[in-house]
Amino acid sequence: MSFVVLPDETLEDLQIKGLYIIQKKDSFRFGMDAVLLSNFIKAKPHQNVVDLGTGTGILSILVSAKTDVKSITGLEIQPDIAGMAQRSIDGNNLNQRISIIKGDIKEAVSIFGAATCDIVVTNPPYTKVGSGRINNLNSKAISKHEICCSLTDVLTSSSAILKPQGEFYMVHRPERLTDILAGMRKVRIEPKILRMVCPYQGKAPSLILIKGLKNGNPGLNIMPDLIIYDEYGKYTKEARIQYSMDL
Amino acid sequence: MSFVVLPDETLEDLQIKGLYIIQKKDSFRFGMDAVLLSNFIKAKPHQNVVDLGTGTGILSILVSAKTDVKSITGLEIQPDIAGMAQRSIDGNNLNQRISIIKGDIKEAVSIFGAATCDIVVTNPPYTKVGSGRINNLNSKAISKHEICCSLTDVLTSSSAILKPQGEFYMVHRPERLTDILAGMRKVRIEPKILRMVCPYQGKAPSLILIKGLKNGNPGLNIMPDLIIYDEYGKYTKEARIQYSMDL
Repeated sequence: MSFVVLPDETLEDLQIKGLYIIQKKDSFRFGMDAVLLSNFIKAKPHQNVVDLGTGTGILSILVSAKTDVKSITGLEIQPDIAGMAQRSIDGNNLNQRISIIKGDIKEAVSIFGAATCDIVVTNPPYTKVGSGRINNLNSKAISKHEICCSLTDVLTSSSAILKPQGEFYMVHRPERLTDILAGMRKVRIEPKILRMVCPYQGKAPSLILIKGLKNGNPGLNIMPDLIIYDEYGKYTKEARIQYSMDL
Repeated sequence: MSFVVLPDETLEDLQIKGLYIIQKKDSFRFGMDAVLLSNFIKAKPHQNVVDLGTGTGILSILVSAKTDVKSITGLEIQPDIAGMAQRSIDGNNLNQRISIIKGDIKEAVSIFGAATCDIVVTNPPYTKVGSGRINNLNSKAISKHEICCSLTDVLTSSSAILKPQGEFYMVHRPERLTDILAGMRKVRIEPKILRMVCPYQGKAPSLILIKGLKNGNPGLNIMPDLIIYDEYGKYTKEARIQYSMDL
């Protein structure tokens, strides 16, 4: 096992199945979002998974570790980030299961074909352009802000490439919940499961996990909250399970 | 203080400001929904409040007790129930502040006029016709099922009678959240505050409280959950506050 790592990059141990991830030192590093989303996803071995806006490839790699899915494709618009993701796949010997494609989410249907995907997963940029401070137009900004694609773009492309009854999984911010639920329904991905992630019990949620079903019937199942820290600031039992820590 | 109570009715102490409510013995009785919604509502004395589908008048009476609003109007389609609500208003000496109108939510705009209301509150039927067992076409069924009006009817009428920047408060079921958020946005009542009500910590929500703003900007604030019972099955401190119990 060896990784090609550039001077402005760092190699981080994912603490699961001996996997590593290459990240930019000064850019967007993987966080709780990708870990929680990867645990939220249910996938059967024969299903194919597309990861829209894969960035470093973190979500694709975690899904490969946590499911028996044989085909995962990560789409990333930024050439240098797509190349870095590919080096992580190479170093982890995951080329048999994960492909990285350099391309635009808005062109997903011409890249993958209409109604070809069993499962779409995505950890898209959270912040609307104009509503948050943007750090120039670097890769960090593109990962965080809706510069290259909006939530509507992500949903429209997801719906187009999903098979009928295909599944959609996303992590996002609570303040966008109306945009998310109304937007999903508009493109015929019916919201089916919603889970709020709260830093502490009794606090407002900081993230939401959502599962939708292409052409699904109305009816949303809201799960109990996922609480990350206990009153002493230590990981809760469920957070430790999420991070595959010893209990 | 005296109440005109019929043989099939019962008079219940609301445990607040010496108020009582007349209810049908065998029909829909007021519950936690109305109490929690009444506490969720913020209203200033000069604002006028319309309670769409008031039923027994419970929500209007609780709002009168918990705010200094001078004008509350409850609209109820069922003549016998509207009459019963009126007798509760009479018995509580609330005629100066609360009016009961017998009428259809779908005709609210012709009853109240367009853009005339500061605040709309509603505890509408929760269950779609066809998705739950219906107990004949009695008043209980009309209170629980969308027989006389659908969620879309409630939202459409609310939007029509609300002033610009008017406020909308509703209690409903979690499984309808997509219908609610997408439906509110469609009629230009932007969802602003969402609170989940959970019976116990670590359990899924059983009710949701939602506040919307007519012509408001996107952006939803999800509050910490409201938990009703503690691990010993006793009311939590916050539930005791909601029920105005001694702490």
